[in-house]
Amino acid sequence: MDGFVSFVSSGPGDPELLTRRAADRLDRADVVLYDDLSSGPILAIAAKAMLIRVGKRAGRPSAKQTAVNALILKHARTGKRVVRLKSGDAGMFGRLEEELTAVRGANIPFEIVPGVSSVNAAAAMAGIPLTRRLTARRVQYVTGADITGRLPDDLNWNALTDPKSVTVVFMGQRTFPELANELIARGLSPDTPALIAEAVTKEGQRLRHGTISELASTLHRDGPSSAPALIFYGPLTGISDGIAEPLDTDQTEKH
Amino acid sequence: MDGFVSFVSSGPGDPELLTRRAADRLDRADVVLYDDLSSGPILAIAAKAMLIRVGKRAGRPSAKQTAVNALILKHARTGKRVVRLKSGDAGMFGRLEEELTAVRGANIPFEIVPGVSSVNAAAAMAGIPLTRRLTARRVQYVTGADITGRLPDDLNWNALTDPKSVTVVFMGQRTFPELANELIARGLSPDTPALIAEAVTKEGQRLRHGTISELASTLHRDGPSSAPALIFYGPLTGISDGIAEPLDTDQTEKH
Repeated sequence: MDGFVSFVSSGPGDPELLTRRAADRLDRADVVLYDDLSSGPILAIAAKAMLIRVGKRAGRPSAKQTAVNALILKHARTGKRVVRLKSGDAGMFGRLEEELTAVRGANIPFEIVPGVSSVNAAAAMAGIPLTRRLTARRVQYVTGADITGRLPDDLNWNALTDPKSVTVVFMGQRTFPELANELIARGLSPDTPALIAEAVTKEGQRLRHGTISELASTLHRDGPSSAPALIFYGPLTGISDGIAEPLDTDQTEKH
Repeated sequence: MDGFVSFVSSGPGDPELLTRRAADRLDRADVVLYDDLSSGPILAIAAKAMLIRVGKRAGRPSAKQTAVNALILKHARTGKRVVRLKSGDAGMFGRLEEELTAVRGANIPFEIVPGVSSVNAAAAMAGIPLTRRLTARRVQYVTGADITGRLPDDLNWNALTDPKSVTVVFMGQRTFPELANELIARGLSPDTPALIAEAVTKEGQRLRHGTISELASTLHRDGPSSAPALIFYGPLTGISDGIAEPLDTDQTEKH
């Protein structure tokens, strides 16, 4: 008897932002493979499932991708309903492809349950639309870190310095000071609005806004936080001051 | 007594892809303002609400944005729980900004409930990851039509012809033949994979894949369908042939 694999998007973290289908799949799962310690309230829905943590923890290496693939196949082959839980939307920067390829290769039936991307959640919490009719007609998502943790060396600078595009940087806390310097050197205004959204919809959510230049200084001074963060920059408007606090740009604490 | 406005993302159409919060807000709504006739199964959740249709219908003008804003304010000011339902995610190409500005200006409390973007849903249905570790590190969303329905005249061609970016074109069925011609003339390979996703997760869902050149020919030949569609192109991999059918590129009907 063959099992079934559901690649389930968990959304940004708040269990209320799970889709109804995701909640159903968790409820009926036999096995759940998950990445993130902070998934607790979501995992609680999978009341009868065996929970297997395979993800990264700060300072510890993550399970090898091949080991994750092997675990998915092992449980599916014994007829189990396997949920592979992915934060945000499964198809965005989540290395879905490697796992999909393994499941397809083994001829195991599967589905992908799309979810609320952390980008959409962060924008909603900050009260900013991602697009504007005339001034923000392109939105782009990039990763700020390659596999070694450095700024990728094949960034499209023309695309990234476009003042009419809203850019969202994933995994960019550590490299943003360098990225911002490049953007400014290549002509993007240092006063371009920026927003950093940490732990969106989770315990400890923090939204701060300023300019790209201020954000670069703050991250250079304070270093990255341990929380996952998204960085937005571009023609952002309507940031809710009540929710997003201004960046602390007091430079006296700098050294 | 002041009301409350929830800008609620409906997701792509399947009620199972509503978030739990969206379902809760609909369930408790006094008034729901919606755009799309195909929202029926989702509106059914709003059992006790007054339903007001404000959106476009093919061939008929849509309600003016100012009229929509006025309706939101009118009902909120009489103490109602107003849900403004937006397809996909509310912050993406949905003209959220105009309505947010009106609600903020009137000092009415509000929230934005993020949702599953039709992009994420289409990618999930087609079985394609939006990002790949080395070859698709940037994802970008653009609109294929300006307010007059024509291809926008301020597109960033360098960004759009980047072979390492996955591009998603909203409202692009009518202009895609022209867009593809430009992309190819500016150096993007005519064999770049493309996918057109119509009526994602709704009755009549149809996914077709081919190359940008084939898709341009098909749309040129057949014209746009009446269903809303997203067009993807770039380094797309793993398109599920069982779900996404090949484009019909039989040119004999072209005459």
